[in-house]
Amino acid sequence: MSGNVSSPGATVVSRVLAVLYAFDNGHRRLGVTDLARRADLPVPTVHRLLRELVAGEALTRDAEGRYAIGRRLWDVGMLAPEQTELQQVASPFLSDIHAATRATVHLAVRDGTEVLYLDRLSGRASVPVVSRAGSRLPLHATGVGKVLLAHAPAQLREDYLAAVLRRPTVHTITHPERLGRQLAAVRREGYATTEDEMTLGACSIAVPITRATSGGEQEVVAALGIVVPTLKRERTRLLAALQVAARGIGRSLP
Amino acid sequence: MSGNVSSPGATVVSRVLAVLYAFDNGHRRLGVTDLARRADLPVPTVHRLLRELVAGEALTRDAEGRYAIGRRLWDVGMLAPEQTELQQVASPFLSDIHAATRATVHLAVRDGTEVLYLDRLSGRASVPVVSRAGSRLPLHATGVGKVLLAHAPAQLREDYLAAVLRRPTVHTITHPERLGRQLAAVRREGYATTEDEMTLGACSIAVPITRATSGGEQEVVAALGIVVPTLKRERTRLLAALQVAARGIGRSLP
Repeated sequence: MSGNVSSPGATVVSRVLAVLYAFDNGHRRLGVTDLARRADLPVPTVHRLLRELVAGEALTRDAEGRYAIGRRLWDVGMLAPEQTELQQVASPFLSDIHAATRATVHLAVRDGTEVLYLDRLSGRASVPVVSRAGSRLPLHATGVGKVLLAHAPAQLREDYLAAVLRRPTVHTITHPERLGRQLAAVRREGYATTEDEMTLGACSIAVPITRATSGGEQEVVAALGIVVPTLKRERTRLLAALQVAARGIGRSLP
Repeated sequence: MSGNVSSPGATVVSRVLAVLYAFDNGHRRLGVTDLARRADLPVPTVHRLLRELVAGEALTRDAEGRYAIGRRLWDVGMLAPEQTELQQVASPFLSDIHAATRATVHLAVRDGTEVLYLDRLSGRASVPVVSRAGSRLPLHATGVGKVLLAHAPAQLREDYLAAVLRRPTVHTITHPERLGRQLAAVRREGYATTEDEMTLGACSIAVPITRATSGGEQEVVAALGIVVPTLKRERTRLLAALQVAARGIGRSLP
């Protein structure tokens, strides 16, 4: 064991994870120097780990010497039960909604104080959106996010409203009292909407997906949403499609 | 370093990978004893690795003491450029085909001598299929597989035809000469079909997705296919939809 001057007590396992976690959406291909900086590890240590991770097919190395996540880690990631079981159960329902509406359809869960998109279905005729499977967005600026925030534990919701909130557009609602009233309406009415709050020209409507707990209560485990250019006149029809699908998914969950 | 009696020269990195690779589709949740057996490592070694992998949020541990792939490895897996870049480019085209046909749509690549499904779109009205994203099936028994086998390197194709081939149904074509003639027809005609060869009651039609190489040639990088109850009368229409989408995907590839 050698080399990690910045955190001498770190184990090999934590160093391996630091190298893997150095990749993100904006950094899918990284050279050894960038990897060492992002993982906060010395270059020789990273070199040694990279050699073994490539030999084990966890990473790939391209002709320019840049490293990327390899097929075997893609395989492994697909086995995460929390993310993929829900995604697999929901998938045919998302297809049905998309086929009926041609709109972008989202399946999302709350990950701390962000929306995590588990799946997205989008045709070429759909309105452009910033999300994709695996991406994260602020809870208060998206339809699925408002559903998840409305049903989050009360303490988390209070802390969230007390923080300074990002404003992706001028229409994003960040005033704590106004947002709080909206979240109460989401709980009461069973759905959330946004208008130009995440992206200009995009509106959304979303509903919760619930599952019965062992105690017999309904708990919100995910949100199902749809993004369209405008909600005018379409709201009732879209809401009905979402509610039918959300109930279907909830019933099908293991 | 201690404990790995079965392979004393193995490094910590290779042991970490052995633990991660011990999970598969049929084994998404594993106890420590099963993990140790599947990873071919002593139980105390696996215990120590598991503790660190859970602390690093790579794995989760449930109330029954079973381990599973966690959200951060799901995140990492989604960053694999080879798999997800193609999947993301193809996704809107798959949605369009599904919306137009309501059939199951597949995006697949060749992984050695198997078909690897990168994406699958399937509504509740679609014919049931055995594939899902991340799953693997024999090349010779599926439409996308025949396309990928037809365009595989000649040596791989010869070796494949010389091997004893699996017969998922009584209709699976395994006779080397008959299959070889069919693959030549796939190259000549630009598409492949199956009838009840993977699953009874399911037919498929598939086309190659090509990309221009730096040398200006077209190379087959993936296959796009559709599964329907019957191809009768639908063949021309489905083939046209697939060919338009495959060309669109090929043009959009980075």
